[in-house]
Amino acid sequence: MTSVLPTDLTEQALDAALDGFRAAVGAEHVLTDVEQLREFRDPYWFAAWDDYEASAVVQPESVEELQAVVRIANDRGVPLWVSSQGRNNGYGGSSPRVRGAVVVNLRRMNRVLEIDGDAAYAVVEPGVSFFDLYEAVRASGHRLWISVPDLGWGSVIGNTLEYGLGYTPYGDHAANACGLEVVLPNGELVRTGMGAISNGRAWHVYRRSFGPSFDGLFFQSNLGIVTKMGVWLMPEPECYLPGWVMVPRDDDLGPMVDIVRELMLGGSITGYPMILSPVAAASVFTDRAHWHQGEGVLPEEAIERICSELGFGRWTMRFAIHGDEAIVDHRFARVQEAFGRIEGSTVIGTKVAGSQVHTIENPAERVQAGVPNLELVQMGKWYGGEAGGHIGFSPAAPLTADDATRLRDLMRGALAEHGLDYSAALIPTGPRSFINVVLVVFDTSDEDQTRSAFAVSKELVPKAAALGYGEYRAHIDFMDLCAGAYDFNDYASRRLAETIKDVLDPNGILMPGKQGVWPRRMRGV
Amino acid sequence: MTSVLPTDLTEQALDAALDGFRAAVGAEHVLTDVEQLREFRDPYWFAAWDDYEASAVVQPESVEELQAVVRIANDRGVPLWVSSQGRNNGYGGSSPRVRGAVVVNLRRMNRVLEIDGDAAYAVVEPGVSFFDLYEAVRASGHRLWISVPDLGWGSVIGNTLEYGLGYTPYGDHAANACGLEVVLPNGELVRTGMGAISNGRAWHVYRRSFGPSFDGLFFQSNLGIVTKMGVWLMPEPECYLPGWVMVPRDDDLGPMVDIVRELMLGGSITGYPMILSPVAAASVFTDRAHWHQGEGVLPEEAIERICSELGFGRWTMRFAIHGDEAIVDHRFARVQEAFGRIEGSTVIGTKVAGSQVHTIENPAERVQAGVPNLELVQMGKWYGGEAGGHIGFSPAAPLTADDATRLRDLMRGALAEHGLDYSAALIPTGPRSFINVVLVVFDTSDEDQTRSAFAVSKELVPKAAALGYGEYRAHIDFMDLCAGAYDFNDYASRRLAETIKDVLDPNGILMPGKQGVWPRRMRGV
Repeated sequence: MTSVLPTDLTEQALDAALDGFRAAVGAEHVLTDVEQLREFRDPYWFAAWDDYEASAVVQPESVEELQAVVRIANDRGVPLWVSSQGRNNGYGGSSPRVRGAVVVNLRRMNRVLEIDGDAAYAVVEPGVSFFDLYEAVRASGHRLWISVPDLGWGSVIGNTLEYGLGYTPYGDHAANACGLEVVLPNGELVRTGMGAISNGRAWHVYRRSFGPSFDGLFFQSNLGIVTKMGVWLMPEPECYLPGWVMVPRDDDLGPMVDIVRELMLGGSITGYPMILSPVAAASVFTDRAHWHQGEGVLPEEAIERICSELGFGRWTMRFAIHGDEAIVDHRFARVQEAFGRIEGSTVIGTKVAGSQVHTIENPAERVQAGVPNLELVQMGKWYGGEAGGHIGFSPAAPLTADDATRLRDLMRGALAEHGLDYSAALIPTGPRSFINVVLVVFDTSDEDQTRSAFAVSKELVPKAAALGYGEYRAHIDFMDLCAGAYDFNDYASRRLAETIKDVLDPNGILMPGKQGVWPRRMRGV
Repeated sequence: MTSVLPTDLTEQALDAALDGFRAAVGAEHVLTDVEQLREFRDPYWFAAWDDYEASAVVQPESVEELQAVVRIANDRGVPLWVSSQGRNNGYGGSSPRVRGAVVVNLRRMNRVLEIDGDAAYAVVEPGVSFFDLYEAVRASGHRLWISVPDLGWGSVIGNTLEYGLGYTPYGDHAANACGLEVVLPNGELVRTGMGAISNGRAWHVYRRSFGPSFDGLFFQSNLGIVTKMGVWLMPEPECYLPGWVMVPRDDDLGPMVDIVRELMLGGSITGYPMILSPVAAASVFTDRAHWHQGEGVLPEEAIERICSELGFGRWTMRFAIHGDEAIVDHRFARVQEAFGRIEGSTVIGTKVAGSQVHTIENPAERVQAGVPNLELVQMGKWYGGEAGGHIGFSPAAPLTADDATRLRDLMRGALAEHGLDYSAALIPTGPRSFINVVLVVFDTSDEDQTRSAFAVSKELVPKAAALGYGEYRAHIDFMDLCAGAYDFNDYASRRLAETIKDVLDPNGILMPGKQGVWPRRMRGV
């Protein structure tokens, strides 16, 4: 048996809970061997560190089995940590915030329950990956696109609940989810929106209900476990144009961001673009050793070689336009015209028929058409090859030149102090805001570098907060720190979260500590 | 003093509370005279009926004054009912669900706090009307549009919180609100999203926070009072094309709806259109007596006269296209082509420069360009002239031919049984769903007809629910009935709402009964 025990729990209580889980889901779906658990560990957490070990992994196959697991956890006081696919890499993977928690992994709940070709939506269970949904939609024969993140192996529900992003016009995944089914911390089942009517016809087409909307409570949350979700699908456009913008100078970032905002507000760029720093762009194709062997931050000379040899700008943006061909042509001309205001910039783009996007070679261009792949896994291997890892440090900010420049300077400077390269992706989350994902890349087999990577991420949290920026998502190791930035009115927002947490989860069993929200028994109140 | 007392409250307790309110907001802002209160009464509720009388109206000027009012109400156990402008006509106006409640009216909190011309948003207080915001944006000189509902006198925040709709591409008002400040039922102040950081830069541009989102809790809600809200604004388009589609046969409704869905999914119609029945269309310009003098439902012959004399179709749709002129032309051709599939249909449209929309004459065409007016007040005067009133009966449904036809038959049939005319507006809330607003029109000075109008609305609730449709909004008189349709898992959704209500509002003072959610002390639990 396991020796990893949650605080406040006896070995006997945990064993009794595990017996209960075995009875509920079948003994073969309760994993306790060290070897079996390894797969559900944060892949980038240093191997000898055991802060976030799970005691077991339970894999229910149905809502009823999941409800049984939740009820047993309440009876025994066992903390649960839920993952769908468990691919939350860069933020802790499937590892629980609380050492010794039982991971409830939902991979076996993997059905695409419905694809509606008229109203253009699908209904999925949490174990459905982007690859699964893509295949199911293709097989249905409907000319509909899904939206996918850079890596297609994750769960559609898991990604959406963490405010994950894709790059088609439906790339704000949370905004295109409609109608949830949720197991509450006490095991009770609720449906949101029009699903609260037993035979509700508008569950997956109309976002609201009669009265307040509870959907938001279940995002980045420890208030419930989402078991079904509607996903809006996009009609295949007549034409798709993936494009690239390269600007020559570091300080072109500001004007570039202002132009992106203008083009997105006006609708000329229809997908969600991504602006890459030279290291981020180079890491798609090469590792660091290819450019430089020495310690310390990559020298300016190497950055210039990256840009010239790979044909990147000092900042490189991928973007896409979707629509009827005549409209795509018009919009592309607008994009070219707008970036023409930056001296020395280059704008390129190639039209593809909407029905032919699965044949596109470049994975960055496939992804903006909703075709999933795994090729960007390479980006995390900048240092350390197969042992490469990353942390996502990801504040949200207004999409303006000032904000982009300020965050660049802050983050690049902090990384440099630790001798780490600056690999940044600026991802607009709409025309008005962006997520500044810095991939803090490191060699996971190098304990010192791993420690530095976490140290710099943690140092950045209060520095970003002092400038008015909060993280959109964070690694379990510094969730508390990130939550601490949300200080308005003496942490009124945290008190609200705790008040609701305590009443919905009185035994404090569901994902304690997620996003810095702790149940009463662990707050020492 | 008033003789309208809330249940469970003594005259002494109410008087003490009123004294407290006077001290907090100034005596002149606590209204108790019958004459003063009349303005805050449901204007369509029969004059001699006193079910929903308020005991007083309190008008704070600031967040601090409002917090003081809420704290006094907690101390004294006084139920409050909040209105912003108080224009929730058709759904109860400013009248409280609980007789004798004190109306907290927020008209005096009427500042436009910020207009950001770069990121295209405004920040408003609850007393700001659509007219106010329109004027403020015009005065700022920024080339930005607001989105307005059919009547411009309402509060931007009030309308948005009730899931109100406008008709520009930003017409889903709740989806274009970003960042709330809220007074909780205990008087505490919270800010949602990135406003939870004291100096949070992304409050009104990024919709989420770190952890769960609480915004949805405060829509159609008795869980808090919204005191500030970000409102996204739309850049003025180069070109605006308001258009009309007329179809000749009653059964063209189905194909018309399917085509609207297709055009909205594909982006050819950019605003939120509205499909009108003949009586709804005629009521914009004329009253019933103009067409028919007799009792009972308007005869077929009169409906045909309406269509031929006013140039309407058997169903008439207003719609709009926004964008660069070349794109508008392309999209309009698509719209014409699509409706060409319905025999005998007519599609017309006229282009206007985006900068000239304030000069448009037709109010229905102004409204789709975000220019507010009050001309559609006329629609409620079908019966009874100045004494005309209406109830909004408004289920939400998938935007499909089957659903539209089924609801038409249900509602027209039920109204006919009561001898009432069928005045319907089908309003898509996006490409996949629509609200079927039936204006149950009546003469508010005619007690029998008023009673019939409420009776038919109430009869329709369970009938619509049996077919899987729930109301998106409802009059205070049948909120409980509407809430009763949301029955999944033995009313799990209501239990969730009540659980959160009880913990956030333990004294049950804030808007008891709103949308069928009652605090514990009034549930008799």
